[in-house]
Amino acid sequence: MKPVSRYPVPPLEELPQDVRERIVAVQEKSGFVPNVFLALARRPAEFRAFFAYHDALMEKEGGLSKAEREMIVVATSAANDCQYCVVAHGAILRIRARNPLIADQVAVNYRKADISPRERAMLDFALKVALDSGTVGEADFPALREHGFSEEDIWDIAAISALFALSNRMANFTGMRPNDEFYLMGRLPKK
Amino acid sequence: MKPVSRYPVPPLEELPQDVRERIVAVQEKSGFVPNVFLALARRPAEFRAFFAYHDALMEKEGGLSKAEREMIVVATSAANDCQYCVVAHGAILRIRARNPLIADQVAVNYRKADISPRERAMLDFALKVALDSGTVGEADFPALREHGFSEEDIWDIAAISALFALSNRMANFTGMRPNDEFYLMGRLPKK
Amino acid sequence: MKPVSRYPVPPLEELPQDVRERIVAVQEKSGFVPNVFLALARRPAEFRAFFAYHDALMEKEGGLSKAEREMIVVATSAANDCQYCVVAHGAILRIRARNPLIADQVAVNYRKADISPRERAMLDFALKVALDSGTVGEADFPALREHGFSEEDIWDIAAISALFALSNRMANFTGMRPNDEFYLMGRLPKK
Amino acid sequence: MKPVSRYPVPPLEELPQDVRERIVAVQEKSGFVPNVFLALARRPAEFRAFFAYHDALMEKEGGLSKAEREMIVVATSAANDCQYCVVAHGAILRIRARNPLIADQVAVNYRKADISPRERAMLDFALKVALDSGTVGEADFPALREHGFSEEDIWDIAAISALFALSNRMANFTGMRPNDEFYLMGRLPKK
Amino acid sequence: MKPVSRYPVPPLEELPQDVRERIVAVQEKSGFVPNVFLALARRPAEFRAFFAYHDALMEKEGGLSKAEREMIVVATSAANDCQYCVVAHGAILRIRARNPLIADQVAVNYRKADISPRERAMLDFALKVALDSGTVGEADFPALREHGFSEEDIWDIAAISALFALSNRMANFTGMRPNDEFYLMGRLPKK
Amino acid sequence: MKPVSRYPVPPLEELPQDVRERIVAVQEKSGFVPNVFLALARRPAEFRAFFAYHDALMEKEGGLSKAEREMIVVATSAANDCQYCVVAHGAILRIRARNPLIADQVAVNYRKADISPRERAMLDFALKVALDSGTVGEADFPALREHGFSEEDIWDIAAISALFALSNRMANFTGMRPNDEFYLMGRLPKK
Repeated sequence: MKPVSRYPVPPLEELPQDVRERIVAVQEKSGFVPNVFLALARRPAEFRAFFAYHDALMEKEGGLSKAEREMIVVATSAANDCQYCVVAHGAILRIRARNPLIADQVAVNYRKADISPRERAMLDFALKVALDSGTVGEADFPALREHGFSEEDIWDIAAISALFALSNRMANFTGMRPNDEFYLMGRLPKK
Repeated sequence: MKPVSRYPVPPLEELPQDVRERIVAVQEKSGFVPNVFLALARRPAEFRAFFAYHDALMEKEGGLSKAEREMIVVATSAANDCQYCVVAHGAILRIRARNPLIADQVAVNYRKADISPRERAMLDFALKVALDSGTVGEADFPALREHGFSEEDIWDIAAISALFALSNRMANFTGMRPNDEFYLMGRLPKK
Repeated sequence: MKPVSRYPVPPLEELPQDVRERIVAVQEKSGFVPNVFLALARRPAEFRAFFAYHDALMEKEGGLSKAEREMIVVATSAANDCQYCVVAHGAILRIRARNPLIADQVAVNYRKADISPRERAMLDFALKVALDSGTVGEADFPALREHGFSEEDIWDIAAISALFALSNRMANFTGMRPNDEFYLMGRLPKK
Repeated sequence: MKPVSRYPVPPLEELPQDVRERIVAVQEKSGFVPNVFLALARRPAEFRAFFAYHDALMEKEGGLSKAEREMIVVATSAANDCQYCVVAHGAILRIRARNPLIADQVAVNYRKADISPRERAMLDFALKVALDSGTVGEADFPALREHGFSEEDIWDIAAISALFALSNRMANFTGMRPNDEFYLMGRLPKK
Repeated sequence: MKPVSRYPVPPLEELPQDVRERIVAVQEKSGFVPNVFLALARRPAEFRAFFAYHDALMEKEGGLSKAEREMIVVATSAANDCQYCVVAHGAILRIRARNPLIADQVAVNYRKADISPRERAMLDFALKVALDSGTVGEADFPALREHGFSEEDIWDIAAISALFALSNRMANFTGMRPNDEFYLMGRLPKK
Repeated sequence: MKPVSRYPVPPLEELPQDVRERIVAVQEKSGFVPNVFLALARRPAEFRAFFAYHDALMEKEGGLSKAEREMIVVATSAANDCQYCVVAHGAILRIRARNPLIADQVAVNYRKADISPRERAMLDFALKVALDSGTVGEADFPALREHGFSEEDIWDIAAISALFALSNRMANFTGMRPNDEFYLMGRLPKK
């Protein structure tokens, strides 16, 4: 059995109830527990903060589709060489976009992916926030507005890129391992 | 009056009670409201997650002194060209370390700062997590252990670097402005 | 029908006989024609030179296993952001290594992949040749010899990295599109 | 007493008269001897050349205000991670600009500083000369002329950036230490 | 006698006939055997593929002059720190262009060389293919077409850059030594 | 007649006497006036400071041979893409080292040049000062001392690298043109 990460995972029964419940819930929904839940559970306060931030950006209603949000995660995580996030969110992206090719395309080189000009502008901006945020300024906004992104959408793009800047560093530092289940998810036609 | 950030700040009275209370509390303690509270308040769920994460890492007891934690923030935020975090946490670092010179030294070039070899090793690692986390691996741990850092301390170093990777990107993206009050804090001898 | 590349593909019947025969042969063996054959066919002399070079390095007997050679291709092509080579050779790597996970791991961050120390040393060297060949020197060889690589094996590692430096640039420049067939190859257990 | 630099400082009485007189003069004017004078004094010919160059650019009349010149020094020295120059010239910038905030802003990220579009264009150019002078060309001049910079002003911007390219490297190499006095200079309102 | 490269050179009489004939032919034409022929001869299949690729791009008729093609080789090889290719092809460039200064200018900084705007656009594109091919896209083509480059010419520029990406890596890896004869070739006026 | 630089050159008779005399002297010694004298003459104070600095480092007696000093200039100027300094000081290096090949070797990739381990250590350090001086520290000194460099020699290496950091930026900014005479100097055997 391959390790979840560099740090030990506490026994489920020793976790605070809310953390345990979240883990049980995702297990029931997905059929397995993605390792990020197990790797972060040893620090319940950080676990709660991380998933609260995640849900606030990734689960809410809003101008960005869920597939678009996952695209931001995959593209910025690839730029940060984060195996866990590319593999895990690549699976979610394939499912959300109902497209078995899109995640690999975005991960290797989003400029060559089958995406719309709107998505290209979104990812150009997300990558700038990820890699060179000190140069982000007013000059970056008009191109986004032209593609129909509202001020709130632009915040969402930047905030997702920022949250995964955190997540990528934690996954890389802890050597978080993507579950084997992710690799094939969303690649086969639904029967 | 200079703007808090690129995005409008909601009136205090329209904020959820817990957000408002946190803002009032920091105002009472510090004598002013650091702009990060005002800039993030328009997104209460993200506000709560961010400060929960912050408190979990920066306020808890642990092996790293509070000055050491602020040193990590200043050094990594400088590497990310984040004006808000360098100026605001530079002020806190001066106060925590009771050293009026340390923040400017660490911000410009921590390798030349008046810090101990332990602190140097800590910042070398924090910067690697900040700038090149994909290459972090087992080879980085022995040097940290030799300086007395426990496995939990090492997690703290990496997690603080990771949280401010998020924070720096949000501050840079929103054009968050450091309050004028920060610049002089901790520079004068206590009377 | 999505385009093979930025440049038009000549009709099969207008190609020189040897080029056409090579294309027919790969079609019979694989069940489809990988687009690199179609994209390069319009320049028969370059087509012949490219596949002669490819076969000399990838098809011959030698100290490197075929899976190891494909690993070099995937890792260096990922470093060069080459969608065609990562997707196409990722498929071949999965098959050669009989491992459905290995290609995605190596493509995102080979340092985190399930590979042996020998393979890690091989990829470290291949990446140095790919990204910073001007600093390659005697100091790089002992680590490779310690892992059992002969002088001929080391040439093979470097030469494969060098050949795909060419291939990645041609694929990126022509916008060569990976065939849809590649994405799922080698991901499912053999029945 | 902390060392001035990695190299020993000669006794004042052993210095050539002109070098000693310059040091005495700055001591009388400033109330202390900035360490750059002490660190360079052991090489009188280089000392004379350096301060001659410095005075030719920083003390003369000309189209750039003295505050603008110090801004160039602070911004380019920060890009070169030069603690001595950022701290010492940051102090001078605060005084010349009568602005206690400007030096820290420019040092961390001049793009976010409270500066005019003219100053922004000036610093963009100074940084290009500092960091990538091989790509400077005719295309860089029109933007500067539009902001009212004459050909002589443009020379001054580039030459100040170039002189501190030298100065930053000497300070970094010698481990030149900023005097404690600099840190607080210009931060308090004049009484 | 200085070594040809890190690897031994096989005796001429042990080489396959076609390889030997090519070496004899270049010896007769040039008066010496450029070391690239000797260094690659130990791998006849790779030797044949390399020179077939080389001839297909460098010797054919086409829209690019032979001097222009050598310019691409020199500029991209300099960017890759490849001593063999800069020195050897620098000699050929001086001869092809009948200009004793051009090779050194292009090698150090082609932006400052005595070249036409057409050649500048050609080299800008060749360098982008050499150094950052993942970002090459449709936006790069109009500038080339404006300077009169056909679609086939653009392929040639990219393919020469790509071939020398391979060649530079092999020369750097093998420590291929430029023959002493190259350094002075084309520098003196023809008598 | 090609221009000396982007800026006009004042008539010789309008220059201050000392500047004019220096120019006349170099003309008499070399047979031509290197363009750096003409390009800087329009700013006599900077001219005097620059050449005073130059002479203090390049003309004095000391532990570094004159060929070694020119090697530092060529290697660091190549790293800064400075055509004037590579071509002009390449010529001087060939003459000082009585070696017609050395300048081109050092300019393209000093790691592959025919230099001694002592010279290699010297250039490694000079390049670190040129390109990343903020990380220079005590750890860099032992390797230099082992090769017999004294503390004064180390200062000289760093100071030459620093002076040409300035010089390269001025030459690149002004578009200073190397005189045609330099290209062939030192390439032919002395009769």
